[in-house]
Amino acid sequence: MRTVLIIGVGAGDPDQVTVQAINAMNAVDAFFVLDKGDTAAELTAARRALCERYVTGNDFRTVIIPDPPRDRAAADYAGAVRDWRDERARLLAEAIERELPEGGAGGILAWGDPALYDGTIRVLESIREAGHAVDFEVIPGISSVQALAARHRVTLNRVAGPVHVTTGRRLAAGWPEGCDDVVVMLDAGLACRAYRDQPIDIYWGAYLGTPDELLVAGRLSDVIDEIAAVRREARDRKGWIMDTYLLRRDRPAPA
Amino acid sequence: MRTVLIIGVGAGDPDQVTVQAINAMNAVDAFFVLDKGDTAAELTAARRALCERYVTGNDFRTVIIPDPPRDRAAADYAGAVRDWRDERARLLAEAIERELPEGGAGGILAWGDPALYDGTIRVLESIREAGHAVDFEVIPGISSVQALAARHRVTLNRVAGPVHVTTGRRLAAGWPEGCDDVVVMLDAGLACRAYRDQPIDIYWGAYLGTPDELLVAGRLSDVIDEIAAVRREARDRKGWIMDTYLLRRDRPAPA
Repeated sequence: MRTVLIIGVGAGDPDQVTVQAINAMNAVDAFFVLDKGDTAAELTAARRALCERYVTGNDFRTVIIPDPPRDRAAADYAGAVRDWRDERARLLAEAIERELPEGGAGGILAWGDPALYDGTIRVLESIREAGHAVDFEVIPGISSVQALAARHRVTLNRVAGPVHVTTGRRLAAGWPEGCDDVVVMLDAGLACRAYRDQPIDIYWGAYLGTPDELLVAGRLSDVIDEIAAVRREARDRKGWIMDTYLLRRDRPAPA
Repeated sequence: MRTVLIIGVGAGDPDQVTVQAINAMNAVDAFFVLDKGDTAAELTAARRALCERYVTGNDFRTVIIPDPPRDRAAADYAGAVRDWRDERARLLAEAIERELPEGGAGGILAWGDPALYDGTIRVLESIREAGHAVDFEVIPGISSVQALAARHRVTLNRVAGPVHVTTGRRLAAGWPEGCDDVVVMLDAGLACRAYRDQPIDIYWGAYLGTPDELLVAGRLSDVIDEIAAVRREARDRKGWIMDTYLLRRDRPAPA
């Protein structure tokens, strides 16, 4: 049996790594990197910097799993995505068995928290379902949502209220029912713009926890154009952007 | 100006503290403890153990802010809660000004993440609104939700899907619209029992990250009685319980 440690390493601030994650990084025989193709070189360098900082002795080994080719023109789109996922899991399983000794531990660093909008747990599940003798453990990490709230010094929920975490695509399809506090991730197009006429505060952040961190907060109607401009400029300059935001809609004061 | 560092210290596992939190703990002149009355002695001991482990030299000072009396029989319930909150903030402000030197830093340790179902940020906001020269910073921590997901090795959201975080009281009032993945916190009565006839998986955990940790997962209808029994036995034995769970309702497979 071999074990893979899926290690959440926070949103970008190397200080936002837990002691548990550091211990896990030091227990690893080889780190596996699922090359997603869209991974910016900067993120790869940041991951390496984390290992250099925290792995005692700077003695670590990294194995890159190349992204399998993806048939984006397939008539059966969902089927093509499944095939691609299966193939990626197969390549990782192969690498785990080739690179780790029996009883050894591999590590996969996940930005943020592996439980939130990250596919690593699912990849390991499918490796196990395919019958490989691979176990895995998950080490939670500070997500960008939490880094965002901390930097803006706001809570995610209001007193005893709910919070809804969703994607830009879903927000574009409609405001979530029954919730006035909404966190939006994976939004390439600032879907919140559609709600600019509503009484909403926005807390936006990009590259959270890094030297490039950007923060804007205010009434949505007042700051949405500023956010759009700041976001466009940053993405053009750096070639990529990772951002998230909290929308807080006014609600009647409790009686 | 004095600064208060609101330090998220994770859900209970001392290893789930971040480097940032450890650094913050070491920058603190005095720790303030808001005695909530319902705080178990065990939690106080756990907080002290964190300081002993992480504050270099074991030289730390703790100031207890006693809970002001609360008029639970008041005709104006919401008003009485507000008065109580204001009085608590006033007592903390007084202690900050009395115990910290000008330019000094106080610390408040928050279990989990200060952004999620924790009142500390609101207390500091109200101290500032009352005109005190007190600033504050927030250091995020691993929440019990994340500890739960990691221990069960599940993601909180499904692929590109939303996740709704709510309370037991709200779940009892109805299943959140438009979401099949629901995290429930602050639930004293296992409100999920009302949904036991629906096709739902539950991932439940208590005392997460501590030696007393309890985990149960399975089909809601199959395990709800077991969870209720385990929960009752543990609460009776320890005198308190902190638990949370994820409900994952079946949804049609994507086309």
